[in-house]
Amino acid sequence: MQFHHHGYVSEDPRVAGAAGTGIDRPADLPDEMDVLIVGSGPAGMLMAAQMSQFPGVTTRIIERRGGRLPLGQADGIQPRSVETFAAFGFAERITAEAYNIAFMNFWGPDPENPGNIIRTTRTEDYGLKISEFPHLIVNQARVLDYFAEAAEIGPGRITPDYGVEFLGLTVHEGDEYPVEVRVRYAAGEREGEERTIRAKYVAGCDGARSRVREAIGRQHVGEFSAHAWGVMDIMVETDFPDWRTKCAINAEAGNILHIPREGGYLSRVYVDLGEVAADDNHQVRSTPIEKVIEKANEILYPYSLDVKEIAWSSVYEVGHRVTDGFDDVSGASERTPRVFLTGDACHTHSAKAGQGMNVSMQDGFNLGWKLGSVLTGRNPESLLATFTAERQPVAQQLIDFDREWSSLMARKPEEISDPQELSNYYLATAEFPSGFMTHYSPSAITGTDEHQSLAAGFPLGRRFKSVEVVRVCDGNAVHLGHHARADGRWRVYVFADAGGSRVGEWASVAGPVLAGFTPSDADADAIFDVKAIYQDAYEDIDILSVPKLFLPKSGPLRLTDWEKVYTAAPNTWCKDDIFAEREVSRDGVVVVVRPDQYVAAVLPLDATAELESFLKGAFLPA
Amino acid sequence: MQFHHHGYVSEDPRVAGAAGTGIDRPADLPDEMDVLIVGSGPAGMLMAAQMSQFPGVTTRIIERRGGRLPLGQADGIQPRSVETFAAFGFAERITAEAYNIAFMNFWGPDPENPGNIIRTTRTEDYGLKISEFPHLIVNQARVLDYFAEAAEIGPGRITPDYGVEFLGLTVHEGDEYPVEVRVRYAAGEREGEERTIRAKYVAGCDGARSRVREAIGRQHVGEFSAHAWGVMDIMVETDFPDWRTKCAINAEAGNILHIPREGGYLSRVYVDLGEVAADDNHQVRSTPIEKVIEKANEILYPYSLDVKEIAWSSVYEVGHRVTDGFDDVSGASERTPRVFLTGDACHTHSAKAGQGMNVSMQDGFNLGWKLGSVLTGRNPESLLATFTAERQPVAQQLIDFDREWSSLMARKPEEISDPQELSNYYLATAEFPSGFMTHYSPSAITGTDEHQSLAAGFPLGRRFKSVEVVRVCDGNAVHLGHHARADGRWRVYVFADAGGSRVGEWASVAGPVLAGFTPSDADADAIFDVKAIYQDAYEDIDILSVPKLFLPKSGPLRLTDWEKVYTAAPNTWCKDDIFAEREVSRDGVVVVVRPDQYVAAVLPLDATAELESFLKGAFLPA
Repeated sequence: MQFHHHGYVSEDPRVAGAAGTGIDRPADLPDEMDVLIVGSGPAGMLMAAQMSQFPGVTTRIIERRGGRLPLGQADGIQPRSVETFAAFGFAERITAEAYNIAFMNFWGPDPENPGNIIRTTRTEDYGLKISEFPHLIVNQARVLDYFAEAAEIGPGRITPDYGVEFLGLTVHEGDEYPVEVRVRYAAGEREGEERTIRAKYVAGCDGARSRVREAIGRQHVGEFSAHAWGVMDIMVETDFPDWRTKCAINAEAGNILHIPREGGYLSRVYVDLGEVAADDNHQVRSTPIEKVIEKANEILYPYSLDVKEIAWSSVYEVGHRVTDGFDDVSGASERTPRVFLTGDACHTHSAKAGQGMNVSMQDGFNLGWKLGSVLTGRNPESLLATFTAERQPVAQQLIDFDREWSSLMARKPEEISDPQELSNYYLATAEFPSGFMTHYSPSAITGTDEHQSLAAGFPLGRRFKSVEVVRVCDGNAVHLGHHARADGRWRVYVFADAGGSRVGEWASVAGPVLAGFTPSDADADAIFDVKAIYQDAYEDIDILSVPKLFLPKSGPLRLTDWEKVYTAAPNTWCKDDIFAEREVSRDGVVVVVRPDQYVAAVLPLDATAELESFLKGAFLPA
Repeated sequence: MQFHHHGYVSEDPRVAGAAGTGIDRPADLPDEMDVLIVGSGPAGMLMAAQMSQFPGVTTRIIERRGGRLPLGQADGIQPRSVETFAAFGFAERITAEAYNIAFMNFWGPDPENPGNIIRTTRTEDYGLKISEFPHLIVNQARVLDYFAEAAEIGPGRITPDYGVEFLGLTVHEGDEYPVEVRVRYAAGEREGEERTIRAKYVAGCDGARSRVREAIGRQHVGEFSAHAWGVMDIMVETDFPDWRTKCAINAEAGNILHIPREGGYLSRVYVDLGEVAADDNHQVRSTPIEKVIEKANEILYPYSLDVKEIAWSSVYEVGHRVTDGFDDVSGASERTPRVFLTGDACHTHSAKAGQGMNVSMQDGFNLGWKLGSVLTGRNPESLLATFTAERQPVAQQLIDFDREWSSLMARKPEEISDPQELSNYYLATAEFPSGFMTHYSPSAITGTDEHQSLAAGFPLGRRFKSVEVVRVCDGNAVHLGHHARADGRWRVYVFADAGGSRVGEWASVAGPVLAGFTPSDADADAIFDVKAIYQDAYEDIDILSVPKLFLPKSGPLRLTDWEKVYTAAPNTWCKDDIFAEREVSRDGVVVVVRPDQYVAAVLPLDATAELESFLKGAFLPA
């Protein structure tokens, strides 16, 4: 964590100084704003936190509910989401209060007494095997709390406008604030009052029944299956020995997905309520909780649950739907989009793969920095077209994965030939549900793979996978990627050639190129956070002789930032070698990473012209 | 982190429900209170956080200053202090914002050109070598902020009474509130007003010029040395290459201890101002900061500092003093103490070994749980006599260490025969400054070493050194000791015999013994948090067949606590074996640990009578 460079910070360094629109931010929803976020779920709240890092942009977030979410909803947190939380500054705190999944156990009928269940497999969870981030369970309400805090302590000082309901919108292209939005106060003193406000861009983060989706005429395509599930957050007394372990239970009496929750006493239980009649007309949704508990007890036999408290419960049919487009522009249109859909507003599916909240957050992460960058003049409006292009395929993959996983989960025992099949599937596909399989296609912000072989372990379009390196200024072993905060900046990781002579040439040419896209009155690293990773031994690097590009001065005092120079040479206290682990060329290479942590370009050190060309395609001159 | 057992918790689980005196706690200082803490430094603030866990006790903390400390003061954080922060719930947060010491480098005169300094040694810091906790640098102000938060979110809801000055006290033994304290409002609306308040106990945490010490007639014994130092928190531009590494610099021109600070840009620099004339009469304290900077530049030659901002500075002479007693009772007196001294009020020394704040916090940790336990009737008043008995020797050891270290630091180059000497001393003595050498003598709360050989790695009177184990209920690898919060409870770690038959017998006999000291209306683990550590393979332990003592029910819902059963059998995901690493007998052993994490008793499984006898000596029957 870096601070003090704008003067001594006495209190919590996580609280940024207010800036721009964060200074004297009006409590009431203004008539005009740059960005209007509709809905304060995971996508919307992440976006609020992200936009708070663009205090030059006026952002508001409206939520129909009168206040924060108290309970219920999603709770599965992929490693990729924890990585994202780290970028927003709260990974260590939410991890400390969450349930950490170490195992997933599988239960099935006892072959000798099929009415009883027995444990068939213990499977170590994929969490820490796939990345340095854990696989957690924690209530969505807490995730939202942390993003709300990040939004509020960011320079933009963004807080949700609770109790404001979205009614509809009209886009008047050509106006300065082209999106006319009709809202109604749904709570508080002005309850019932309707208003019209105007925004440059609107993000529909308003859930499965999205009115923003309806307003732009997008179709949610897909079906509800004929399978219903009850879900409950409960505190119980039980003799089921795996009550604190995540379990998939396939019994003759039906199926349970059991997920222990944060705090040591609560669990979430998904109970298979079986096939729904074709003419049910959603009547299954009014199944009483007692029925769900009764069913759970049948499935768990010979074990049983004595439910002491029900914190939350619901009944739903599994649906798998993707919206036919994630913004308000049809393929043939020339204009760039003004309205976007994220999260459940554009993809809905079963809860049981633990994906929904995670993919929604990545939608918000993808969109947030793009809106901030376009509105601050860093990038052209065309950047916004990449949102749908990148996120719609991810949603489709998610639906496909979830359909397979949830139908595997809902099988009858007689359909299961191999009791290991489910656990094998769980392990074999782990990288997808951990959130690391997203792979964006080439575009103005994702380069071609011409030089991919120079850094095979940093695939273009995939998220930058961190490795520990030694920070030269103080000898600390740190994760190279964890320094990257969700601050809207791009990262340029410059892997030096042995000896570092070519990297010196690179810096002298590339420095002015990068400066050409950086406002002259901003810190040198305001847009591009350039870091050098040497191969030489820690003791052999004279930090003051590295190119000044890697020792920029920042803040009003023009103080040197010492923390951008690293070495990958293995040491007793840092055994990793990022060159070896990520197959980075010993001749050096430049890896450009987007603000949302996806690899944008891999270029040789002598390809400064290509770098300039890539940046010209993605950025506007400062 | 465990919660939800008193009902579903929606918001931050770190915020405990208010209880006892924390409900409707008066904003104004009342006339009578159980505990009055004088001073809001590290010892006082830790005590406030500790007392907040005893909401049955009325605790107030007064501070002459009108508000929180903004800057300056101590900044060295031993691993033992980070361990303590973990018990108070904020280790991960303060670590994230602190400077982590990876190296300490040593500089001396260049033999070929003695007017120039050169680096003579790089020494890996002892931090992570000695325990799993790091060695940090962070401003005292932030440490106090975190303790203030812990005090405020604890059930006692304790907040400091700022702007209230201690004037004096008189002890009227026999009264219900025997300590009469005179205070004056030093800030705010009532400024200048004097009041008399009464307390059962007073903790003097009011610094080197303690008025509480004066009021009880204790003498601060020792001397100022004739050596003066300037200290400054500065932001600079420099060509000194180790500016972000902790360094001891012994130049011909004098000495510097240089300590990089949190945030990446600030450093604390201690500059040797040399011998002070006998008749100086503290005039050296008015040395202008320009002189200190000039001296620093002379020492650093051929490098130099260009100071851009001075956040804080001071000049002082090194003093080494210990008070002749840490409470208000002289050796011959029969009565138990009513007034205690902690921290700088009873031991002052140089700042350069980075010890002061740390030892002060341990004073507060030692005293806090004892006051809480006596005032809630768990333990007899005689417990309070152990405070001085335990902490006065620690203070003396500290002074001795600091005197040696600070004179080594202040040597002239010609006095240094071996350039490695200082770094060797630094490494050889590392366990002391890391805070782990404290060793309490036998007393009513520290048993004899008769059975020490059964758990040689848990020495009696030393702090319980944690090892990773596997939690049986969910398979997570967790540090056994990190579960212990600073909640005033004792820990009983029951290491099971192979197979676990003897531990079953132990539980059936010891369970009722422990219950005899636990209020009947409290949770079974309200006083003793009993945990079992088995030797058997994770897969072989049937958690529901362990003695019910290790699966207690708690809270109003009487929910089973699943998190007290562990196994030490090494696994792929947890390679440690606590039996092997701590030399624990495979026949099983019971290790009793105090609320401040010191080992109190080591007993064989069949020594339940000895356990009862130990507890009878330390506790009152419930």
